[in-house]
This record gives sequence, structure tokens and C-alpha cells, in this order.
Amino acid sequence: MAEGLLSGYLPPNGFYGNRPCAVLNHKRTVDMQKKAFQDYYPNHFSHCYGCGRLNEQGLKIKSYWDGDESVCIHEPRPYHTAIPGYVYGGMIASLIDCHSTGTAAAAKYREQNRTMDTEPSIRFLTASLHVDYLLPTPLGVPLEIRGIVKEIKRRKVIVESTLSAEGKVCARGEVVAIQVPEHFMPGIS
Amino acid sequence: MAEGLLSGYLPPNGFYGNRPCAVLNHKRTVDMQKKAFQDYYPNHFSHCYGCGRLNEQGLKIKSYWDGDESVCIHEPRPYHTAIPGYVYGGMIASLIDCHSTGTAAAAKYREQNRTMDTEPSIRFLTASLHVDYLLPTPLGVPLEIRGIVKEIKRRKVIVESTLSAEGKVCARGEVVAIQVPEHFMPGIS
Repeated sequence: MAEGLLSGYLPPNGFYGNRPCAVLNHKRTVDMQKKAFQDYYPNHFSHCYGCGRLNEQGLKIKSYWDGDESVCIHEPRPYHTAIPGYVYGGMIASLIDCHSTGTAAAAKYREQNRTMDTEPSIRFLTASLHVDYLLPTPLGVPLEIRGIVKEIKRRKVIVESTLSAEGKVCARGEVVAIQVPEHFMPGIS
Repeated sequence: MAEGLLSGYLPPNGFYGNRPCAVLNHKRTVDMQKKAFQDYYPNHFSHCYGCGRLNEQGLKIKSYWDGDESVCIHEPRPYHTAIPGYVYGGMIASLIDCHSTGTAAAAKYREQNRTMDTEPSIRFLTASLHVDYLLPTPLGVPLEIRGIVKEIKRRKVIVESTLSAEGKVCARGEVVAIQVPEHFMPGIS
């Protein structure tokens, strides 16, 4: 792994306590020093509880490209429990939701051969969210959410995701995301 | 509306600020002085971030019977934003999730002609969650989630829900819930 990759995220020995870090089980690495998809959102779209950089109480979910897949690494807070020791299902849904709408936006920029810092800005909202919970998801380890773009068609993008902990896929998600019209103005920035 | 119904929830004039309270738009009323479904969960199932009475940071989602429907009234916190003025989709998914697993448990007790304070206790976990987001959901008003049991078969219960604000259905959900085996012990209480 090149120096600087995942710095500030990975502990020096690749372990959190006595647990191996999930992302090290994966062949690829992600430069998390780069700006995340969500960091490019305009201010009035940056108050999202899940992923807004301007929401002080929020989860600040961050997503990045890793080749043709998108990846998010996120460790839920200790109180995000379902039953003790396991992650709350609503948190899993939230991670899949924000990661997928972020991936949809990033995919649309890619389709247009543009970087995410160029205008006009692109944002997607969730039309539908589906999550299959396959295994209990352990709390206290980083979770890895990986997305692929299944369909990209005009204003609609479908993103499929897996959520893994310690190398095991614990949940699968599908989000249908719809692009926000350019004239949409929420009135508050 | 009989005295005592919704006390502690409804303001005396039926309004929150200058907004009518959503539940008043509905024909039925719910006795929210009763214990909620979630208040009957055993201690080791009461740490859920969404609905656990023992999770201090949690949302404490509460559900009740209203005839053959189940109902939950919940007002998200001011920072549970998607874009300013509207509710975060992950919060909507969380409300539908916990309300549905609670409804599944309550329905199973009903099927067995038992009250929820009798043993053995019944708990359900989410196998899958689907949410269709139909309209932006306004923040700052109570949301009303109504569930119906679509299917109840051995250990599986399917619950369909609507989530409404100010009388308008903003989201629809479907949860497939699976009953936790009696021998299941999370190890921490």
C-alpha cells in the first residue's frame, strides 16, 4: 500500500484493537486523502444528516471511487446498536442510501467526462431503497460499503451495494436515485 | 377524543406552533398512555438505537395498535435533515424499520391470543426493508407511520407501512421480519 493511502484512517499496524481492518482484506486501496464525492456537494445540499459536511451532528458518510466501484468506510458510533454488539439496521440503510446517491452523482459526472468540481453541479435524491440483511453486522469495526452502477439512464441511476464487516458481506442494497432538476432550489443555503 | 388519549403528545389546542397535528387529521385516536410494543421487549432487546427504551441516545420509536393497524407518531430532531426543511431518508427508513418489526411482534402475540407481557417473549429482526420515497417529507412536524400486516406465516411476518406528514403520504415501506429463535441469546443484557 502506497504511503499516504488511507492515512488518518488505518492504524499503523492495520489493526483496530485486536481486529484486522476490513479494508486490508480487499485487494484494492483507496486514496482517502482525496475529497470525497460528498465534499463536492453545493452548500445547500450539504446539510444531510447522513453525509452532509455542514451537518455537525451528522454521520458524515464519505465515498470514493476505487476503479469502477465506489467505496465508503464507516465505523458506526457505539450507540448505533441493534442488539448489543451488532449494528442497527437503520444505520445500515443510511450508509447504503448516502453512499448510493453519492455514487450516482459521481457516475453522472464520469458519464459527462467532467470532474466533480465543475458546473453545473449534479445531485441525486433517493426514489427507492432496498436492503437485504444477510448476517448480523458486528459493531466496533469499520464497515466497508462497495457500490456498482447497475444502470445509468437520463436522470435515473441504479446503484447496487454490499456492506461488509471483517471480510464478510452482511447486507446488500439497491438504490434507485433520481437526479435533482437544475432549477430545484430548496430556498435555504 | 376521550380525555387522556394522546396526552403528553398532543398540545391542548391540537396544534404544534401554527401547524395542525397530523394525528388529528385521522379518524381514529390512539391511547399513547398505554405501553408501546417496544416497551414490552426484554432488556437484552431494548438497546436498539431506533426503538430501545434503554438506549439513551436512541430515537425511542414507539408503536401502538389502532384497530387492525399499527401506528407510530414521531417527530425527527431538527438535525435529521436531507436538505434543509426536509427529513433525511435514512430516518424515514429507520422509522419504517422499527415500527414494522414492532408490529410483527405484536401481531404474533395477537395470533396466539396473548398479551405482550406474557412469556415466552417474541421479537423480530429485519430480513429485508424496502422504502419508496414519494414526496419530500417536511421536517418540524410529527410524522405518522401506519402499518398493516400483509402476511403472517410461521416465523415470517410482512408489514406494509405508510409514512405521512400533514395528512399526505410521503413514503411507503415494506418490511419482511423474521422471528428471533427462542434459544437466541445475544450474550449481553
